[in-house]
Amino acid sequence: MTFTTANEQNAAIIDGKSMAEEIMSRIAFEVKRMKESIGKVPGLAVIMVGQRRDSQTYVRNKIKACEEAGIKSMMTELPDHCKEDEVLNALSRFNEDPSVHGILVQLPLPQHLDEAKILDVLSLEKDVDGFHPLNMGNLALRGREPLFIPCTPKGCIELLIRSGVEIMGKRAVVIGRSNIVGLPTSLLLQRHHATVSIIHAFTKNPEQITCEADIVIAAAGVPNLVRGNWLKPGAIVIDVGTNPIEDPSCEHGYRLRGDVFYEEALRVASLITPVPGGVGPMTIAMLLSNTLDSAKRAYNFT
Amino acid sequence: MTFTTANEQNAAIIDGKSMAEEIMSRIAFEVKRMKESIGKVPGLAVIMVGQRRDSQTYVRNKIKACEEAGIKSMMTELPDHCKEDEVLNALSRFNEDPSVHGILVQLPLPQHLDEAKILDVLSLEKDVDGFHPLNMGNLALRGREPLFIPCTPKGCIELLIRSGVEIMGKRAVVIGRSNIVGLPTSLLLQRHHATVSIIHAFTKNPEQITCEADIVIAAAGVPNLVRGNWLKPGAIVIDVGTNPIEDPSCEHGYRLRGDVFYEEALRVASLITPVPGGVGPMTIAMLLSNTLDSAKRAYNFT
Repeated sequence: MTFTTANEQNAAIIDGKSMAEEIMSRIAFEVKRMKESIGKVPGLAVIMVGQRRDSQTYVRNKIKACEEAGIKSMMTELPDHCKEDEVLNALSRFNEDPSVHGILVQLPLPQHLDEAKILDVLSLEKDVDGFHPLNMGNLALRGREPLFIPCTPKGCIELLIRSGVEIMGKRAVVIGRSNIVGLPTSLLLQRHHATVSIIHAFTKNPEQITCEADIVIAAAGVPNLVRGNWLKPGAIVIDVGTNPIEDPSCEHGYRLRGDVFYEEALRVASLITPVPGGVGPMTIAMLLSNTLDSAKRAYNFT
Repeated sequence: MTFTTANEQNAAIIDGKSMAEEIMSRIAFEVKRMKESIGKVPGLAVIMVGQRRDSQTYVRNKIKACEEAGIKSMMTELPDHCKEDEVLNALSRFNEDPSVHGILVQLPLPQHLDEAKILDVLSLEKDVDGFHPLNMGNLALRGREPLFIPCTPKGCIELLIRSGVEIMGKRAVVIGRSNIVGLPTSLLLQRHHATVSIIHAFTKNPEQITCEADIVIAAAGVPNLVRGNWLKPGAIVIDVGTNPIEDPSCEHGYRLRGDVFYEEALRVASLITPVPGGVGPMTIAMLLSNTLDSAKRAYNFT
């Protein structure tokens, strides 16, 4: 047994950035192999509505990653107050374009647009985000396989597996139940045979439940929500939160904080992802991986 | 505070049978009203493959309930060793028949048949069991509505609501994660804002997790699995299990036991469903309710 002072760091850091780079270089290799053998590359189309600063950053990072991997990317930018039809038209063009294998509608959309209606139009075979209800149903149901697993949940699991964490039989708590992260992460953890509890805004004693978890996935979008005393000693913590906190001393006037109080968690957890540099890069790697898989499926290339 | 001896019964019994009868008489009234105003009645078609004793009992009860409510029922029975095409053909006929508003493929199917493939063919508008992956995805996703909520989960929630149980914010444990009961029940409880944990065969300490639950839904298919000491005093217990136990003293040579050790649970729980007479009749009432809703939708009858 080791003696631990109050300030000691116990947790090893999960280096999402370098894990993602490994995956990215495998993808780049596969894209090159595809290009050389059949003269085709995967294509990713992005539809972006409005000027949200965070969305712009995410999209920029995704397009940069495509370039690095040799994946063709194209983007349609629409103004904040565009009509639903304009989004649907852009979507239809990409649906029909055989050089596009993945389509991404950057969320959240402005309030006046019907997100569900728009996502329903997205071709199932190109839904690399995996947000279509049919994909979600196939993720939830045993004995079925979704065409695509949503990128952030898939990235969380990848981080766990690459860190040598066995998921089967573990108590896992997912904090947050968004359609994009919390829900599909809870379904995916169940596919890996974890015992899953889902915590949300109506949960009365989130700290008590989280305290029992071997694996904590924080995806609430609330900075520093998960304190050190929420965690079981030795817990494994995946922090999906990327909350901008104003900080004039930083380059862009803000810095990113996770949903986990990182400095406190470091002393209690055994493994933890940093923000930034944890889930973020892995999410992008999974998006490219889904796009590559989709192109392979389209060209029947193995 | 009341003094309780070891053998005292604390729990009130949830009378699923009489609650279901109430719903059934409302359905019968609605069917009559539909017949009188537009000359149509709802129709339910059942496809049954093989000779499973339990399936035969379930199907018989469903058809009897249809008769009582004035819903037209029809059945296709196929032998155990029938070909997949025969099932698919029967299904297609019912899909195309405008007098059929609900189609039920009695599960489980014999091993040699591809359940997923068969359910995929079932028309979404007639999927009164709610097992289609698109329905399941829409049940899982916030901001979307499934066309049909699976009958047993819907019945469990109905039993809770009619017993005056507030679900929002409650800790709920679902034991079992079948596609038919456990999974959709966990999704539906989340829609009602419970904090849900899902327990299954790989869960290491099911009794410890169950012990924290305000609401326990037992759907593991293991007789007497949930002992009295698994329950928090005052817990609300919904027992989905209907396990035949051999008993020569009973009429058919067997009697039904739930997944919960009923006599023990009676002393600890505050509310509990009996087996039989709890979830079973409510499931049938929900099937008829879904069939009625489907017919109303088809005829645009309100």
